[in-house]
Amino acid sequence: MNNVNVGNVTASDEKNIEINSDMGEAFGLHSFGNDLALMEIIDVANVACGFHAGDPDTMEETVAAAKAHGVRIGAHPGLPDLTGFGRREMKLTPAEVESIILYQTGALVGFLKKAGLELNHIKPHGSLYGMLSRDPELMRSAAKVAALYGVPMFGLAGTAHESVCAEMGVPFVGELYVDLNYNPAGQLIIQRRPEATDPAKAAERVRRVLDDGLVETSDGSTVSIDFTSICVHSDAANSPAVAQAVRSALGGR
Amino acid sequence: MNNVNVGNVTASDEKNIEINSDMGEAFGLHSFGNDLALMEIIDVANVACGFHAGDPDTMEETVAAAKAHGVRIGAHPGLPDLTGFGRREMKLTPAEVESIILYQTGALVGFLKKAGLELNHIKPHGSLYGMLSRDPELMRSAAKVAALYGVPMFGLAGTAHESVCAEMGVPFVGELYVDLNYNPAGQLIIQRRPEATDPAKAAERVRRVLDDGLVETSDGSTVSIDFTSICVHSDAANSPAVAQAVRSALGGR
Amino acid sequence: MNNVNVGNVTASDEKNIEINSDMGEAFGLHSFGNDLALMEIIDVANVACGFHAGDPDTMEETVAAAKAHGVRIGAHPGLPDLTGFGRREMKLTPAEVESIILYQTGALVGFLKKAGLELNHIKPHGSLYGMLSRDPELMRSAAKVAALYGVPMFGLAGTAHESVCAEMGVPFVGELYVDLNYNPAGQLIIQRRPEATDPAKAAERVRRVLDDGLVETSDGSTVSIDFTSICVHSDAANSPAVAQAVRSALGGR
Amino acid sequence: MNNVNVGNVTASDEKNIEINSDMGEAFGLHSFGNDLALMEIIDVANVACGFHAGDPDTMEETVAAAKAHGVRIGAHPGLPDLTGFGRREMKLTPAEVESIILYQTGALVGFLKKAGLELNHIKPHGSLYGMLSRDPELMRSAAKVAALYGVPMFGLAGTAHESVCAEMGVPFVGELYVDLNYNPAGQLIIQRRPEATDPAKAAERVRRVLDDGLVETSDGSTVSIDFTSICVHSDAANSPAVAQAVRSALGGR
Repeated sequence: MNNVNVGNVTASDEKNIEINSDMGEAFGLHSFGNDLALMEIIDVANVACGFHAGDPDTMEETVAAAKAHGVRIGAHPGLPDLTGFGRREMKLTPAEVESIILYQTGALVGFLKKAGLELNHIKPHGSLYGMLSRDPELMRSAAKVAALYGVPMFGLAGTAHESVCAEMGVPFVGELYVDLNYNPAGQLIIQRRPEATDPAKAAERVRRVLDDGLVETSDGSTVSIDFTSICVHSDAANSPAVAQAVRSALGGR
Repeated sequence: MNNVNVGNVTASDEKNIEINSDMGEAFGLHSFGNDLALMEIIDVANVACGFHAGDPDTMEETVAAAKAHGVRIGAHPGLPDLTGFGRREMKLTPAEVESIILYQTGALVGFLKKAGLELNHIKPHGSLYGMLSRDPELMRSAAKVAALYGVPMFGLAGTAHESVCAEMGVPFVGELYVDLNYNPAGQLIIQRRPEATDPAKAAERVRRVLDDGLVETSDGSTVSIDFTSICVHSDAANSPAVAQAVRSALGGR
Repeated sequence: MNNVNVGNVTASDEKNIEINSDMGEAFGLHSFGNDLALMEIIDVANVACGFHAGDPDTMEETVAAAKAHGVRIGAHPGLPDLTGFGRREMKLTPAEVESIILYQTGALVGFLKKAGLELNHIKPHGSLYGMLSRDPELMRSAAKVAALYGVPMFGLAGTAHESVCAEMGVPFVGELYVDLNYNPAGQLIIQRRPEATDPAKAAERVRRVLDDGLVETSDGSTVSIDFTSICVHSDAANSPAVAQAVRSALGGR
Repeated sequence: MNNVNVGNVTASDEKNIEINSDMGEAFGLHSFGNDLALMEIIDVANVACGFHAGDPDTMEETVAAAKAHGVRIGAHPGLPDLTGFGRREMKLTPAEVESIILYQTGALVGFLKKAGLELNHIKPHGSLYGMLSRDPELMRSAAKVAALYGVPMFGLAGTAHESVCAEMGVPFVGELYVDLNYNPAGQLIIQRRPEATDPAKAAERVRRVLDDGLVETSDGSTVSIDFTSICVHSDAANSPAVAQAVRSALGGR
């Protein structure tokens, strides 16, 4: 499967589109998401690494579940904020961004080593993801860790995610979101507690973007979204239905 | 340098004795210990990994300092208890012991990878160290992680540390402590806040044990201590002087 | 309503029996339990205070919900272990037990002050509850906090919970558990992840103990349980049904 | 002593000027600051409450030490960030700001209750202090807690600290800093790790501001600073000397 982002997706593209999902965001006795149901559908899991969610036992279980389902595993490092689930922006230095991503990625790689697996990619979580999309200096810190492990970074095309990866020679995988809204500038509108998504609307978004490369925004306009992976969040009650609708819309891809 | 424990140390032994120290136990703005002074003297650093002390930035700085001084680096995983500095025993399952050691070791290996270094060993911290010395089942959990990384475990000869390593084929490095007391049964007497140690007494303990293999205990009796590495704690104000006295007592070893 | 424990409950007792439940054990985005449904049924809420679960926002919401339902509020302080949900025993000093209970109780009293409410009682959580039931010295630390606030402690009759309260003149409320098993010695068998309870069995336990003061244990024998409050845990999917069954079994009490 | 801010301090003012210091910022085994030496000199202690530093045992000890020295005690609540010592700005909602300040203040009030003391004031810590100075909505959240406890807030005159207190009828105590620089706009320049301050310069700043109400800024210009309390930080090695120099400069006030 080709993870390299090679431009806008159009109906004529022959490449594969993957589905990724944030997994392992339980914390101790507090379960979270629909991991096992989603593992049946997705291609790639972004596994929480302990800072925003995901204690060590949860990481071990999540890696084992992904392995059992043949789902590839990337690191999903977050801000050090369990209470806020990594969704409260923090002012960090570039050195701090690098060290928290390296720490969390290293920890996950420990569990992968035990499972006999390789790290697939790095996808920062929540507010860290947003901070990196807007701040090239912070994004360079993240990309250094990806370069160290020789893996791609997942992110948003047209932001610092993509430009810094290009600058540093780090492979980049652009993402489409089906359960978050885009503003007219093509930026994700991130909520602390996302709304449920209608599977039919998610499928429709996928079909349209595959057809003409465009996604409808919050004001009814459209933006062009460049991607090779589709993210489905795990925490809505109906997220397996959303993932399944996306899978169907992708057809044989 | 030969890390394998080959029996009691006596005057006729030709092997090298190393000095190890727990390093990187600062936390954020809270500095701790005499790391830089000790790095000049010791052979091996046990680097805190974030659960009892040692945030990601401190880990990065500690790895860099050890590398600059040619000091080899092991993981020093602790119980998840920053407030108690890992010195309050917790009832954990074997699975939890394995997952917290694997998580912390993996995180440190991330920083070692960045520095181009290999993991040297694993030495559990504080109450975790004590729990493993007494409970073979928990010790097996720790030894699994050492086996996964192909490194020795540091510990106390004559306890589950040693017997489980032997059972599982994991190399074992026995430690002598010069700044903690031994009880008549040869067990360490661990305090939450250790007392300062007289460097002359530390040196005398080393000279005697090198001479006849015996260490004086808290009641004036002696026990035989089997070791190839000497631990000097970092947190006493005079710990560099203690380490230097031990180094001198070791002579050319 | 009379909270004072005045001996075995028998059919001839005229006193009221209350239902209490641990509430507010969510953590950030991680919801937990069936708080709102239970608030309709119970008399008293034990509100988590941040150390084993229950962040500040959750505490505020839980206090507001209890107030809206006319449910009285006690502190439910736990061990400082979010990952383990306070269910992993820790070796703490008596001073530490007092300071963590005082800290958490004080924090809750802040939210009660805002809501214009008084603290009703203190009921320690999870392993802390068990540690205090077995160790009179630790229990004295907890009882000091109850004495400071002039509130009763909830606990198990026949253990240090009760004897220390008697010794220190702190009012004591004995609890009956309907969703945990008792061993033949009358001690609770606490599990990390409790099993679901059949509401009919919970009601039967209540009816029998009201009738003859006895509870069936894990080996089929019976023990006498002295109580004036019945605890129903919040986290089973059917916990509101269990609480309702208990309420019905209590009849007009 | 009059805590109410009544305009610029000039040589003709007869009011008392107090010295305050942030205390209890140790964490577990990690000591911090020069609390005991400073307690001899200062009037008011701002006691850390566990979120940026200051575990429950440290809080208890700090309250006891302040009481023994006749030093009045305020709450010093911080952002939930032990690693960053509360010095990394976080995006919090107004509800979150209120709940973290209420939680921490309540916890401190528990220790004050045990010591038979009343809360003197609330002074937010680090980045929270800065955030509140710039954002009236967040400051209203803090002031609500002060109003609930009927205590003044410490802060910077001319910022939202002061204007919101005025708007809400909450008493306000303006602070002068002697160990941080002011920029030409009169704003504090906050560093993660502050530099040591020359006691003579601190004394000179105090004498000048008492004389003409002006403080020299980072570019050599002057600003008018309105205050009735002077903050001396505890963490510089020479902070007791700085506090003593300030005390001398205050003369008999």
